[in-house]
Amino acid sequence: MSDTVQSAPVEARTSMDPGAPMPGVATGVVYLDGRYVPRDEARVSVDDRGFLFGDGAYEVTRAIRGRLFEGARHARRLARTLRGLDIALPDDQIAALDAVALRLLRENGLEDGEAAVYLQVTRGTAVPRTHHFPPAGTHPTVYAAATRFVPPSALRERGASVVTVADVRWARCDLKTVNLLPNAMAKQRAVAAGADEALFVRDGMLMEGSHSNAFAVLDGVLRTAPATNYILAGITRDVVLELAREAGIPVLEYPLLAAEVPLASELFMTSTTSDVLPVVRVDGRPVGDGAPGPVARRLYEMLAARMYAS
Amino acid sequence: MSDTVQSAPVEARTSMDPGAPMPGVATGVVYLDGRYVPRDEARVSVDDRGFLFGDGAYEVTRAIRGRLFEGARHARRLARTLRGLDIALPDDQIAALDAVALRLLRENGLEDGEAAVYLQVTRGTAVPRTHHFPPAGTHPTVYAAATRFVPPSALRERGASVVTVADVRWARCDLKTVNLLPNAMAKQRAVAAGADEALFVRDGMLMEGSHSNAFAVLDGVLRTAPATNYILAGITRDVVLELAREAGIPVLEYPLLAAEVPLASELFMTSTTSDVLPVVRVDGRPVGDGAPGPVARRLYEMLAARMYAS
Repeated sequence: MSDTVQSAPVEARTSMDPGAPMPGVATGVVYLDGRYVPRDEARVSVDDRGFLFGDGAYEVTRAIRGRLFEGARHARRLARTLRGLDIALPDDQIAALDAVALRLLRENGLEDGEAAVYLQVTRGTAVPRTHHFPPAGTHPTVYAAATRFVPPSALRERGASVVTVADVRWARCDLKTVNLLPNAMAKQRAVAAGADEALFVRDGMLMEGSHSNAFAVLDGVLRTAPATNYILAGITRDVVLELAREAGIPVLEYPLLAAEVPLASELFMTSTTSDVLPVVRVDGRPVGDGAPGPVARRLYEMLAARMYAS
Repeated sequence: MSDTVQSAPVEARTSMDPGAPMPGVATGVVYLDGRYVPRDEARVSVDDRGFLFGDGAYEVTRAIRGRLFEGARHARRLARTLRGLDIALPDDQIAALDAVALRLLRENGLEDGEAAVYLQVTRGTAVPRTHHFPPAGTHPTVYAAATRFVPPSALRERGASVVTVADVRWARCDLKTVNLLPNAMAKQRAVAAGADEALFVRDGMLMEGSHSNAFAVLDGVLRTAPATNYILAGITRDVVLELAREAGIPVLEYPLLAAEVPLASELFMTSTTSDVLPVVRVDGRPVGDGAPGPVARRLYEMLAARMYAS
């Protein structure tokens, strides 16, 4: 599963897009607090609450030929997270972030092909450090970057492998915040096991991946965890649910149980950077017949048709 | 409850120590990645995993007349958190952090009186952004700051008020990480309610505060939550448990139930910056007779004797 929004996805490392930055090298122009600056000069105060508390929200949006895919939904979700965290970034400033994204695409020569736009808003810089929020009027820190993105098409053809991990996250997984340690630790366990993604299991239920949503097909019904406080309802998840209904596929928003994995004919993940990604192995055991399945393929094709429509 | 380690605690705002920095102004010299720099020039990359993921550990240590109180225990706990996060800061570099702290105290004129030393280690700066860990050899970011500290003595005399909040945190509260959003949000709820601290309740049990441990006295027995994955076992908590045993006070490491609060004769919080702080109100209702109790007073006196011994 790809999560390298600044560069080529894992699976594409051996056939890297020539336009992609090399790992380890910060290049291009990013946006930070009203200024467009070279990425390697973009720095925040040690007193930024993002650095001290992980006190911030983020979004990753796909850009195709210089246009944001589902930009309005990402903006709405960002606004929702900011409200949930009580970070006061005025609605007009949130709306203006689209223009920031488009300028980053332009300045970085990303108006052709595909790119990913990363956006982060923290509660800002405040001294002294206090757990409680700084005084009203503290300016949130706004950071955005756009980078070349290569869709994980080879991995999609092959199918991904996942490992299950205990879902130790907090009870507000519905907020897209930068308190991402459990996600990072879970994904690292997947990588260490030679897998592509980690799948969080809470109380015997498959909730979602470390940075993706999980879908399964069981007895012809498409299953996914409902949008409660225990998952981050992805934009791609929402679109895929719409597409499934459009295609007449029965949908049940109820998580697949871990005990049901052997009965599922298909499993797949969705996210902004992995689209619809078939899963062919869970904890080393094949899913269904061990190859990408027809429901995932159909939904990916429908998604791609929508994404790449000009 | 004080959590302003860079400045005077909340309760002392009206009688501020003349040596304390003014809120909102970053002053003094801090340590960042091997350099001693003015605080307002100390900046980290937007690609620092502390900023992007809250991917780091921290410690706050008390300094009294230029010496660290329980410095060895704080260093051990930091090493434990780093191991838990799989952040590779060599043991000799951890040991060298004591010298950094002492130099910060010297350079900032804090060798007399009291100070607090803040230390944070993140997984470092890495491009591209990936959920999984960056390659081995990525240098952790090390940041440290020392600031004047004024113990919350007036609040201790008066007794603190707390509000209870649902414990929505993750299941690795035993790691002292900068994934602190739930703690910040809980403390903010306390402040918004005019209280001094928030007390996390999980499954009907009082686990701990947003940045402190909780103790109660019930039927003459000192109760506190055991050091499981659901609390951050404070250094002051450990010291207070030792002192209680030394004083012959019966101790039971089992959390006070929320239902038992009306039966408790005393409640108090402990932390590096609040020492032993009596709690006289929980959710607006008095604890015991509504005044600081004798067990908290005795333990504070024993702690102070140890802390201020030269």
